[in-house]
Amino acid sequence: MTLRFGVVGTGAIGREHIDRITNKLSGGKIVAVTDVNLDSAKQTVEKHQLDAVIYPDDKALIADENVDAVLVTSWGPAHEATVVAAVEAGKYVFCEKPLATTAAGCMRIVNAEMKRGKKLVQVGFMRRYDSGYVQLKQVIDNNEIGEPLMIRAAHRNPTVGENYTTDMAVTDTLIHEIDVLHWLVNDDYKSVQVVFPKKTKNAHDKLQDPQLFTIETNSGIVMNVEVFVNCKYGYDIQCEVIGEDGIVKLPEFPSVVMRKNEKLSTSILNDWKYRFMDAYNVEIQDFIDSITKTGEPQGPTAWDGYIAAVTSDSCVKAQQTGEKEAITLQERPAFYSEKGLQTV
Amino acid sequence: MTLRFGVVGTGAIGREHIDRITNKLSGGKIVAVTDVNLDSAKQTVEKHQLDAVIYPDDKALIADENVDAVLVTSWGPAHEATVVAAVEAGKYVFCEKPLATTAAGCMRIVNAEMKRGKKLVQVGFMRRYDSGYVQLKQVIDNNEIGEPLMIRAAHRNPTVGENYTTDMAVTDTLIHEIDVLHWLVNDDYKSVQVVFPKKTKNAHDKLQDPQLFTIETNSGIVMNVEVFVNCKYGYDIQCEVIGEDGIVKLPEFPSVVMRKNEKLSTSILNDWKYRFMDAYNVEIQDFIDSITKTGEPQGPTAWDGYIAAVTSDSCVKAQQTGEKEAITLQERPAFYSEKGLQTV
Amino acid sequence: MTLRFGVVGTGAIGREHIDRITNKLSGGKIVAVTDVNLDSAKQTVEKHQLDAVIYPDDKALIADENVDAVLVTSWGPAHEATVVAAVEAGKYVFCEKPLATTAAGCMRIVNAEMKRGKKLVQVGFMRRYDSGYVQLKQVIDNNEIGEPLMIRAAHRNPTVGENYTTDMAVTDTLIHEIDVLHWLVNDDYKSVQVVFPKKTKNAHDKLQDPQLFTIETNSGIVMNVEVFVNCKYGYDIQCEVIGEDGIVKLPEFPSVVMRKNEKLSTSILNDWKYRFMDAYNVEIQDFIDSITKTGEPQGPTAWDGYIAAVTSDSCVKAQQTGEKEAITLQERPAFYSEKGLQTV
Amino acid sequence: MTLRFGVVGTGAIGREHIDRITNKLSGGKIVAVTDVNLDSAKQTVEKHQLDAVIYPDDKALIADENVDAVLVTSWGPAHEATVVAAVEAGKYVFCEKPLATTAAGCMRIVNAEMKRGKKLVQVGFMRRYDSGYVQLKQVIDNNEIGEPLMIRAAHRNPTVGENYTTDMAVTDTLIHEIDVLHWLVNDDYKSVQVVFPKKTKNAHDKLQDPQLFTIETNSGIVMNVEVFVNCKYGYDIQCEVIGEDGIVKLPEFPSVVMRKNEKLSTSILNDWKYRFMDAYNVEIQDFIDSITKTGEPQGPTAWDGYIAAVTSDSCVKAQQTGEKEAITLQERPAFYSEKGLQTV
Repeated sequence: MTLRFGVVGTGAIGREHIDRITNKLSGGKIVAVTDVNLDSAKQTVEKHQLDAVIYPDDKALIADENVDAVLVTSWGPAHEATVVAAVEAGKYVFCEKPLATTAAGCMRIVNAEMKRGKKLVQVGFMRRYDSGYVQLKQVIDNNEIGEPLMIRAAHRNPTVGENYTTDMAVTDTLIHEIDVLHWLVNDDYKSVQVVFPKKTKNAHDKLQDPQLFTIETNSGIVMNVEVFVNCKYGYDIQCEVIGEDGIVKLPEFPSVVMRKNEKLSTSILNDWKYRFMDAYNVEIQDFIDSITKTGEPQGPTAWDGYIAAVTSDSCVKAQQTGEKEAITLQERPAFYSEKGLQTV
Repeated sequence: MTLRFGVVGTGAIGREHIDRITNKLSGGKIVAVTDVNLDSAKQTVEKHQLDAVIYPDDKALIADENVDAVLVTSWGPAHEATVVAAVEAGKYVFCEKPLATTAAGCMRIVNAEMKRGKKLVQVGFMRRYDSGYVQLKQVIDNNEIGEPLMIRAAHRNPTVGENYTTDMAVTDTLIHEIDVLHWLVNDDYKSVQVVFPKKTKNAHDKLQDPQLFTIETNSGIVMNVEVFVNCKYGYDIQCEVIGEDGIVKLPEFPSVVMRKNEKLSTSILNDWKYRFMDAYNVEIQDFIDSITKTGEPQGPTAWDGYIAAVTSDSCVKAQQTGEKEAITLQERPAFYSEKGLQTV
Repeated sequence: MTLRFGVVGTGAIGREHIDRITNKLSGGKIVAVTDVNLDSAKQTVEKHQLDAVIYPDDKALIADENVDAVLVTSWGPAHEATVVAAVEAGKYVFCEKPLATTAAGCMRIVNAEMKRGKKLVQVGFMRRYDSGYVQLKQVIDNNEIGEPLMIRAAHRNPTVGENYTTDMAVTDTLIHEIDVLHWLVNDDYKSVQVVFPKKTKNAHDKLQDPQLFTIETNSGIVMNVEVFVNCKYGYDIQCEVIGEDGIVKLPEFPSVVMRKNEKLSTSILNDWKYRFMDAYNVEIQDFIDSITKTGEPQGPTAWDGYIAAVTSDSCVKAQQTGEKEAITLQERPAFYSEKGLQTV
Repeated sequence: MTLRFGVVGTGAIGREHIDRITNKLSGGKIVAVTDVNLDSAKQTVEKHQLDAVIYPDDKALIADENVDAVLVTSWGPAHEATVVAAVEAGKYVFCEKPLATTAAGCMRIVNAEMKRGKKLVQVGFMRRYDSGYVQLKQVIDNNEIGEPLMIRAAHRNPTVGENYTTDMAVTDTLIHEIDVLHWLVNDDYKSVQVVFPKKTKNAHDKLQDPQLFTIETNSGIVMNVEVFVNCKYGYDIQCEVIGEDGIVKLPEFPSVVMRKNEKLSTSILNDWKYRFMDAYNVEIQDFIDSITKTGEPQGPTAWDGYIAAVTSDSCVKAQQTGEKEAITLQERPAFYSEKGLQTV
């Protein structure tokens, strides 16, 4: 069986997923495409030599009987409407982050999905498919380090553009930690506080960089997460879980080991694209395989998208107030009670 | 375009490649299958739900017009006849090692291919597709360590079965280093000498283990390669290239980092299957993509298979004599003058 | 020239220093000893075969003309009186931490020393003499990582006794980071806030463990310091300085590298005594050599002892209030304007 | 008790040991000095402010009743005569390598010492006192890796002067591995073979560099030792012991860990002096303490000096012949049957 995708949004990330499904993975096929810029949709079909119908809009694409799953890679503010429409039509959805730009929007998707009575939606949080995080999760779930008590994480980019604003440290950057950390420890967030350390000379005038987030969970785990988007030296993702009986942390990205010029060194990535390349592949392959084999996706759910939105809002508020801000989720519906991906 | 495979040999490795092409990679399809045990062929087709014709033998399979490429995963002694027949029929061939069991047999394949006037054959030396070796090759080719002068390598297995004999340290184990090391430094082998260190208590009576091979190349590079197949602690592949201006070595296989019980540790693999899993995938995907895009495979050639056979023979002889033995290759035909895979 | 020591306090640490000066270092000699328990003093003299006078109390010992320097290793609450008396007598003082048990007491020592007009006192903060911290300091001072923006540190013990209380996480444990971190970045502290993460099952009932301290400096550097005294896995001191242009961290304590049982591992210390053994030796040797060569000690000053006391008080208060507490120092006297030990 | 040294030879290494004994260590004192250049002796006494008699020659110095131990740091060819004279006078001897320039000369010292009936001589092989090698030795002696089967070692210098000749790769460089490796595995050498790999462009015309020594022991352990004295990148000492149950290797020299410019790096030493600085201190302190406490030195013996001389001769012969050369020792006298320093 082949899972037939309709793609909504043919920008950079959309094209990457199209290439992935067409040329690298197995069991998926692009059969329909749309974009607010129809020329972009046409060029994409040509460039990737797709045998795909070009639709004028998402509604028409969703209505195509040949479309099994909708890949939502449009502009963030457009996600909600497309996802709701696809869910109402009973189509599977793979939606890049954010699921919706507001917590209320996410909740509308959650409600639509519950009404439909079946899990259809997966949100594109790829870190859960990274082999390092998967190993961390296994170590924790196997109780190898006892109860997790603290997490120390860092998300560092070498540099960001002039249009990157202080709140984007949450919505574009921290958002990945927000998703992956609660999944790692199987707990919900309770509060967040932000501290702004001395600002680096390498950040533009209006951007506060670095930032330190202290997030607490319901069970009392304290997570210190550093976001530093002009760290200069490279793209670097760190995550260390401190447990009662031991500590486990992510491996460094693998690299050959050099002895040269009085240095023993390995390479650090400069470009984030390479860091989670494998995870993107595994993520989409898992979406295809899970639907093919079990009838529903097994990755991050619409509820996870809602958690991310609520937490993100509190983090931005905490940036502004400097105070400890509550992270207040509605009660988790039984529909989402099974944790999605426990371990791969 | 889809590359249509006929598979000759449905043992363990054959089934793995069938699963790979069918469920993990893109652009390939199994359309025909045969095995000396036809029941095995039938079970394979059923288990993997293949839409494939079952043929009584390799000749019939090769004759099928729907077969673009023959995947040779039969018993080693059967390889030569299948490969020659496929080449003569103008079919692409992906042949697991050994290309043939004798140097003369490899040369017959080389000659058949040259007669056909087109590169058709790729030998299954997957290490050239491992990201670590690819990085080593890039460092060397970019002249980052100057001229390579020495290589120190080790091939260690935790244990081997009772049927593993001293010569298999060459034909089953060292054979991978034989292929990948000359490719790394773009040089040909000249001689080999073997030393047997004190034998481990963990090897069975008749097996000499460990063994140390000292291989010299035409330009004078000296390679010390340890084969230790009852090392107990894990499956471990080491390779370090010592150059005029620096040294580079393979990364350890990535693993989360634990602090527990007064140890700071990472995991070492126990099972060889996981070590080159990615390399197997990249290898076959590259075979498919290269043929689709360029009309010929870009990986290890029939000539590389011949080099491996000649070198392997000299290494076995050196095990027996204890002396330095010459490795004497025929002159490289111009047909094979372009080095296969330089860098990925 | 030999520096002649009078030792006040012959408990464990006192005896260690006596052994160090007598049997491992050069240029120092024990000539006088006292202890509140005179039997302990006598046994020490006998056991170490010292040619030393036993005095009934610190005042008599200080009055001995043969005593050049007083080594204060008595009970903490007794330190202040001994140090003040020694300073007033113009004797050099090496005082184990704390300099005094209160900030006011430290200030009385500071004033006594300034009145005497000469630096006489060194406080036993040995980390400044650890080769790892010395390297960190050099990297920072050489501007190799630009301005320091954040520090992440951890102080972990495998276990502590039943008598270890929550405030001792500051006064016995964090106190070392308090001294070494402001020295590292050449800055003064401004505030501290404490968070108590989920408590480990391995801590006794009344002890909060672990604890996370967020300390800010005048220039805005934010230091996250974890204290975790029942971490089980070993004695582990971590310190990482995040700068504008790079990051530098302490080396792991050196250990041979093992491959065994599917693990690649190094050892982590269990006992804190081994971690700073070299630093203790270098510290006391530097005290001896500096006085011999320059006439005054070059290590942590009485003012550093005062900084530690004030900061410690604020940290304990922050443990109790859960709020951000100010760290308010009196103005640094010109007398202490030269920073103590910049680099070794 | 203070061990009173007479120093024969006030060149660079002699002055370093004088400074060490005078200013860094405990329990030793320089009371007499001589040198073939008496001005050098006088300047040394002045510079180090020694209270020491200057003698016209080694015989006079040895005859001084105040001299307990003779420190031999003269020119190599002069060692034998001084050591024999000192032994015959019943004085302790610490002799820098070589003990004598010929195996016959070493044997004359051995015979003199046996005749005197007491161990008096220690040879200056400091690596046995390096904490890394000490840990290796403990791991092996504790049977943590089972029987050692192979050793892989490397001795690399960034560069050497024009006067460094091919045989000095043995007599000046490999000589340290020759001593420490047989001590590590508690075995005697049987044969050696040398291979010259492709020569680095960085070596001068007449120097063969690098060189690879394959040394076998009586029990069959095979040691591959690389000597590479123009490796450019730094001073680097590697030693890995491959055992039946596991592998252990020396730690890298400790260094802070940097993240900068897309590299994760530690520093490699450039200058050999820093690598074994601690070992030199421990070595001489142990010589002093052992004599003071047990009446005889516990370090490398005259017999170890003889082993080094015989092995060195065979290695130089193997450089010339390219063949496997025997290493033939006389039978070990019962007098030297206790292994010197087992573990520190």
